[in-house]
Amino acid sequence: MVNVDALNTLARRLSPGAMITDPDLLQSYRQDWSFDPAAGTPIAVVRASTTADVQETLRFANSHNVPVIPRGAGTSVVGGSTAVDGAITLSLERMKSIRVDVSSRTAIVESGAITNDVKAVAAREGLYYPPDPSSYEICSIGGNAATNAGGPCCIKYGVTSDYILGMTVVLPDGSVAELGGKRIKDTPGLALTKLFVGSEGTLGVITELSLRLIPQPPTPHTLVAFFPLMADAVAAARDITSSIRPSELEILDNAAIKVAEEFLNMELDTDAGALLIGRSDAGNGAETEMNLMSTLCEKHRATATYATDDPHEGELFIRPRYAVYEAFEQKGVVIGDDVAVPIDRLPELTDGIADIAKRYSTTIVSYTHAADELTHPVLNYPIGDVAAAESASAARQEIYQLVSTLGGFAATEYGVGQDKRDRLSNSLDPVVSKLNRTIKNAVDPNNILNPRVLIPSSGSTDGI
Amino acid sequence: MVNVDALNTLARRLSPGAMITDPDLLQSYRQDWSFDPAAGTPIAVVRASTTADVQETLRFANSHNVPVIPRGAGTSVVGGSTAVDGAITLSLERMKSIRVDVSSRTAIVESGAITNDVKAVAAREGLYYPPDPSSYEICSIGGNAATNAGGPCCIKYGVTSDYILGMTVVLPDGSVAELGGKRIKDTPGLALTKLFVGSEGTLGVITELSLRLIPQPPTPHTLVAFFPLMADAVAAARDITSSIRPSELEILDNAAIKVAEEFLNMELDTDAGALLIGRSDAGNGAETEMNLMSTLCEKHRATATYATDDPHEGELFIRPRYAVYEAFEQKGVVIGDDVAVPIDRLPELTDGIADIAKRYSTTIVSYTHAADELTHPVLNYPIGDVAAAESASAARQEIYQLVSTLGGFAATEYGVGQDKRDRLSNSLDPVVSKLNRTIKNAVDPNNILNPRVLIPSSGSTDGI
Repeated sequence: MVNVDALNTLARRLSPGAMITDPDLLQSYRQDWSFDPAAGTPIAVVRASTTADVQETLRFANSHNVPVIPRGAGTSVVGGSTAVDGAITLSLERMKSIRVDVSSRTAIVESGAITNDVKAVAAREGLYYPPDPSSYEICSIGGNAATNAGGPCCIKYGVTSDYILGMTVVLPDGSVAELGGKRIKDTPGLALTKLFVGSEGTLGVITELSLRLIPQPPTPHTLVAFFPLMADAVAAARDITSSIRPSELEILDNAAIKVAEEFLNMELDTDAGALLIGRSDAGNGAETEMNLMSTLCEKHRATATYATDDPHEGELFIRPRYAVYEAFEQKGVVIGDDVAVPIDRLPELTDGIADIAKRYSTTIVSYTHAADELTHPVLNYPIGDVAAAESASAARQEIYQLVSTLGGFAATEYGVGQDKRDRLSNSLDPVVSKLNRTIKNAVDPNNILNPRVLIPSSGSTDGI
Repeated sequence: MVNVDALNTLARRLSPGAMITDPDLLQSYRQDWSFDPAAGTPIAVVRASTTADVQETLRFANSHNVPVIPRGAGTSVVGGSTAVDGAITLSLERMKSIRVDVSSRTAIVESGAITNDVKAVAAREGLYYPPDPSSYEICSIGGNAATNAGGPCCIKYGVTSDYILGMTVVLPDGSVAELGGKRIKDTPGLALTKLFVGSEGTLGVITELSLRLIPQPPTPHTLVAFFPLMADAVAAARDITSSIRPSELEILDNAAIKVAEEFLNMELDTDAGALLIGRSDAGNGAETEMNLMSTLCEKHRATATYATDDPHEGELFIRPRYAVYEAFEQKGVVIGDDVAVPIDRLPELTDGIADIAKRYSTTIVSYTHAADELTHPVLNYPIGDVAAAESASAARQEIYQLVSTLGGFAATEYGVGQDKRDRLSNSLDPVVSKLNRTIKNAVDPNNILNPRVLIPSSGSTDGI
């Protein structure tokens, strides 16, 4: 345990007011959105204003063997920034600058910038930053990089990693690496930029990112279709994604439709087995894509199909997808999870989830990014209801089991964090596990950076 | 130096006929398309038929400290697979299988498969594998992965790395890692798949790849526009790429236009400072994109603009882009290089290259992937003319100097190989250089894999 004098010495090297040690203030940095009841308490929080602050903190931590938990906006739902007793939590919340270079179609952003602000600043220049995790209005761009965040747009536009051209990253010894550049093809040497994306703060602390922007796509057309069974929606989705690249393609299960209808009162068909929402932003080609989607939905027994090119109506059409979260937030604790199974197994997954929900008397709905084969089960229970929380937790474990049985994986675009690390350790091939650990050890030999996150823990296979 | 008995022992463990030691046969594995006169001679060539062959070879090499040079189709132009005296060259040329899974829109391909064959097999299922390096008819998909190959389509569809979902890779100790999977978002742990892409055979030998396929896009419309000055074409390209995402956008310089016209006789304007070729595959939206491109070209003083939706005419319109290579191949040695400068500096680059060509009495033309800001200078000289070869070599060094002065980089989508490693070592920031070396050392502690390629050599900065 590091002593107070040493911490004071560090504080003096940082920007004014960067370090917090007041016990009351530390409380708000204990948990992230995974709300881990076992979260520790940091010995100090450093709110960096500059890359130099991050360097000082890591140099100090590395020489005193103090773990460092990097933290963006604290919206991880898997314990990506859950505090650890005796560790320093290093918050990037003060580093929020956003600059757009129209000439190179890039944005230079600090890690603490909110993703929605990045999108907004780009949009002012007629440019578009595609990645759209559900939390984009509150999460940080640095957190998106750390987890390689996805979202509905990924079907057409790819994930966060596809938009990161370069970064400033502070390594565990406090040295600064400028990785990548402004161009998609000028990053000679190993693909280090790509390696740091998704590393969940275990290899370095990203302080700045160069993001690739694209021209703002045309306003999307939107289609909704109700299906008797999930299997029908899946068949339609498969035909659609084999033919065209919609800009969104989401499938809600029956439970999600019911929750959305209760919240929105928009006469959704609550008997439907699935609701498919598709969009096309192909400009003058959008109508053709809409027609094709309609035809394929009807081919697969859609009971009702509506399409619109009106932007306002389109926003209404996609409301059910987002209403699930809003409805649940009014009711209590919301737990969004993310799992992936091959699309052909989706009906088994959603049926299984419905069964699990019934057995545990808990509420679980799901929506699926159909082209990515990624499903978000979302759970809901009253705040403060310990028994319900335990039921939800047990239900989640059963979902993970089911996913594994269906040949899928239980950690995808939300990251692995502390919460899913053991699951990852158990499921990864030992050679891959060891390779993760080999690289972690090489880059962070003292294991100070987010040591409980992502990287499979030492096992008998690697002898570390 | 490993002895013959030991090699024979290895040969017996491999698939029948895998090992070549006949001195005459070894000759054809000395050079790749960089035609390095200083290429070594391998002690043996292993033509692997299976992943097990690769494992045996690496286990042997690792325990005997024999370097291994992985080789796909041998089309590297930067010495990515130039042989090294005393090393084993490990060829993947026999591993060519290609399977397409329509349901998951993926292709499982062995590394030795020719990229064009991958494209063709995918196309039979109505699917599309986008990356299109110029050499796609002769290069291997494994080589594309090793170099993260690009091509004209990258402006809209991205580079090879964007299409690799997973891989089977043999690590230096002979263990097999199955990285990634079939889905874009189910690769928990560090982004190891992305790390191995572009690692030029320095970290492991890729034997199989899972490739993401997309629906076949509509037939493109094509536009050509001639400009008085390169600066005009650049201004038009900037306006175009700020507004839309063409499926190709190439710019030829005056020297390239002249060579193409001499070869094709299609009445190209040989006085033009630049020829811009743009394509749109936006289906029913393509006409709008073509009109916009035309308008923007005319705004920037295009002297003549032609657009077509006819596929055959379209192929004719893009002929000049490819004719440069064909014309040069008839005349002698062709050296394709690749450099990147910010698009605003492109006129200075092409003017500078014209000046260098004049001073060295050598032929150099250039074409540019305009959205990627990546320029290919292409040199040509008679076979066997030693003085001309030396002039060309000196001219290339001057081009690299010029690129550096213009804030660019002299190794991009063709890779670094042996030929550009020293240049990379000198230009990389010492922290980044050291990080490359740290990861190489961790994954390949005996430094057996392609030891002269890519990874910055030990310098005073890292003490290795």
